[in-house]
Amino acid sequence: MNNFTFYAPTLFAFGDGEEKKCGELVRRFGGTKVLLVIGGGSAKKIGAFDAVTASLTAAELPYTVLEGIQPNPRSGKVYEGINIVRREGLDFILALGGGSVIDTAKAIAFGAKYEGDFWEVFAGEGQMPSDPLPIGTVLTIAAAGSEGSASCVITHEAGNLKWGAPKSDALRPRFSVLNPRYTCALPPYQTACGIVDMFAHVCERYFTTTPDVALTDRLCEALMKTIVEAGNKVMANPMDYHARADLMWAGMLAHNNSCGVGRAQDWASHQIGHELSAFYDCAHGASLAVVMPAWMKYVMNENPARFARFAVEVFGCELNPMQVEKTAKEGIRHLRSFFRVLGMPTTLGEIGATVEDIPAMVMHRSAKGFPFGGFAEIGPAEMADILCICEGE
Amino acid sequence: MNNFTFYAPTLFAFGDGEEKKCGELVRRFGGTKVLLVIGGGSAKKIGAFDAVTASLTAAELPYTVLEGIQPNPRSGKVYEGINIVRREGLDFILALGGGSVIDTAKAIAFGAKYEGDFWEVFAGEGQMPSDPLPIGTVLTIAAAGSEGSASCVITHEAGNLKWGAPKSDALRPRFSVLNPRYTCALPPYQTACGIVDMFAHVCERYFTTTPDVALTDRLCEALMKTIVEAGNKVMANPMDYHARADLMWAGMLAHNNSCGVGRAQDWASHQIGHELSAFYDCAHGASLAVVMPAWMKYVMNENPARFARFAVEVFGCELNPMQVEKTAKEGIRHLRSFFRVLGMPTTLGEIGATVEDIPAMVMHRSAKGFPFGGFAEIGPAEMADILCICEGE
Repeated sequence: MNNFTFYAPTLFAFGDGEEKKCGELVRRFGGTKVLLVIGGGSAKKIGAFDAVTASLTAAELPYTVLEGIQPNPRSGKVYEGINIVRREGLDFILALGGGSVIDTAKAIAFGAKYEGDFWEVFAGEGQMPSDPLPIGTVLTIAAAGSEGSASCVITHEAGNLKWGAPKSDALRPRFSVLNPRYTCALPPYQTACGIVDMFAHVCERYFTTTPDVALTDRLCEALMKTIVEAGNKVMANPMDYHARADLMWAGMLAHNNSCGVGRAQDWASHQIGHELSAFYDCAHGASLAVVMPAWMKYVMNENPARFARFAVEVFGCELNPMQVEKTAKEGIRHLRSFFRVLGMPTTLGEIGATVEDIPAMVMHRSAKGFPFGGFAEIGPAEMADILCICEGE
Repeated sequence: MNNFTFYAPTLFAFGDGEEKKCGELVRRFGGTKVLLVIGGGSAKKIGAFDAVTASLTAAELPYTVLEGIQPNPRSGKVYEGINIVRREGLDFILALGGGSVIDTAKAIAFGAKYEGDFWEVFAGEGQMPSDPLPIGTVLTIAAAGSEGSASCVITHEAGNLKWGAPKSDALRPRFSVLNPRYTCALPPYQTACGIVDMFAHVCERYFTTTPDVALTDRLCEALMKTIVEAGNKVMANPMDYHARADLMWAGMLAHNNSCGVGRAQDWASHQIGHELSAFYDCAHGASLAVVMPAWMKYVMNENPARFARFAVEVFGCELNPMQVEKTAKEGIRHLRSFFRVLGMPTTLGEIGATVEDIPAMVMHRSAKGFPFGGFAEIGPAEMADILCICEGE
């Protein structure tokens, strides 16, 4: 196990009705004037907007609403939020929605404290402020894990760059309210995208080059197995509260790094997926469903035993000890089947992508730099090869 | 899954050499004058005392040492610490040692802010102050999990009462330094006591009456399985750094409640074990090794399927689907064998206890009240029965 620092000081209020505590939690963490960030209409449709604003009003907290955050959130809304915060002297950012809303809130929270253009921090040209405005979240989609993570991903309209900010514990929310009931009404496609995303967050940590990490290996497997089981349950019965609850908590644990401490991580599938999202504006989860099995096929031979263990522990495959490659491949097949059961695309064509665009995607990625990955090092040629594998069955 | 709040805002610095960050961490969390709490001589022998004081000195932090904390820590040292803190105007408590040292530090931290006698809080006659002094820890024994927990257990000399304070997130350390290297030099008996203790912390959460808790079930199993595997490794090779590291992180996770959220817990074995420790001053882990298998035998029929699952998932037993009781019993036998391999006592006689004392122990416990437990309700008669089972093979 490598040395590590783990600092995840978010308070989680989990369960049906917990959103009533919102106002009191904003007060507890020092907020007095709130920017409430939301997406489209769904937070209003499911009653979350009314519940949250009622809680803020009960705590006598004035708030300004910033709405219209889209999936693959854009820099434009971040600039808009920063301007509102500065103009109105707001001191707390409350995100109500999924990962896109939360990431927008995070970027506003540190951007408001940053002297220059917030994008400089994403581009590595400026330091993340150590004291961003405090943020809280009320989660309505189990997926990105941003409610407990140190991550923030924004797409800049100029150049269509989908980049992550440097990871920082200062980006972890002060509190997050997780009510699984809110996720019961999600359309199947969005539910499925979330499931793929959280599965990927564990996977990118699981496939490591660090030896002797037995405990985090098992924690990863516990999460992945639960995500598959609960994922199948909610696809069959969207109103299954307890499966929704398991998914929602798994989504947080998948990305707060509790299963990733002390081990090298990979993130190549995410990097390639970001390019697909940037080019075709497809859902983050959908891009991962296309890329991840292809990445696995491409890198499997780096450590077939680990892939075989993945097959056995997560999908219950039988180990073929004389031919671990066979077991390894079976695991990848199971993962792909799982994604298909979820209704996810698993080929380029299904998200409107074509092999002709591959050189352009590789070129576009080079703005962020090569190589990436860790389990295997991915340069331009390897990225192109993996995208080619995404093409076929 | 039940509703829950989870708030574990401790910063963990994990790995060899991390104790060098101590001074800087005390400063980060607002300390300027430190009470350094230690046990006997072992912290000095392994070099931890020198490393920690050097780090404090480098950060220009004055400190006063309170030493001589014993296992099953006593109230006397808490009163002594509170007096020093008040007299010298100290503002940060740094614990260097295992659970007993940390629990003493916690009691001093809130006791110094409590107007009356700190024991009133343990006795339920006073409110836990919401703003105890900040504490940090440098852990030298993987066992109690107090480095990340909301718990604190002290024995009051008057009445020989070994009681826990009401759980409070205010009792969680601001930071904890975990260097597995320090645990490599532990005597086998102390290592083993720690392994039993952390295993028990997961067990008391695993045996629940709450249905539909698939995710935390799996997390519990991941922890227990790792504890058994790494436990066997360090008994065979005490210098195995990576097994020590897995145990140290598992010990923290076992009791920070990450595997216990949203589910009813039990804690009967701990309650009964505390009486054995109070009567015979035996190590906490040793008392649990005696009580836990007996408790399991006694309550197994409340839910044989759960015990069978425990046998399969933690000890790799084969499920006998027509006779789950058989599989369940096999799991309990495996646990007892594991404790014996660790060199732990598993009968009353081995810790110097006798059946003649059982009525007195039950009577003594009544000061804290009956019933306790949760998986099964334990009254005076049940407690006596379980202690009787501890008597035999």
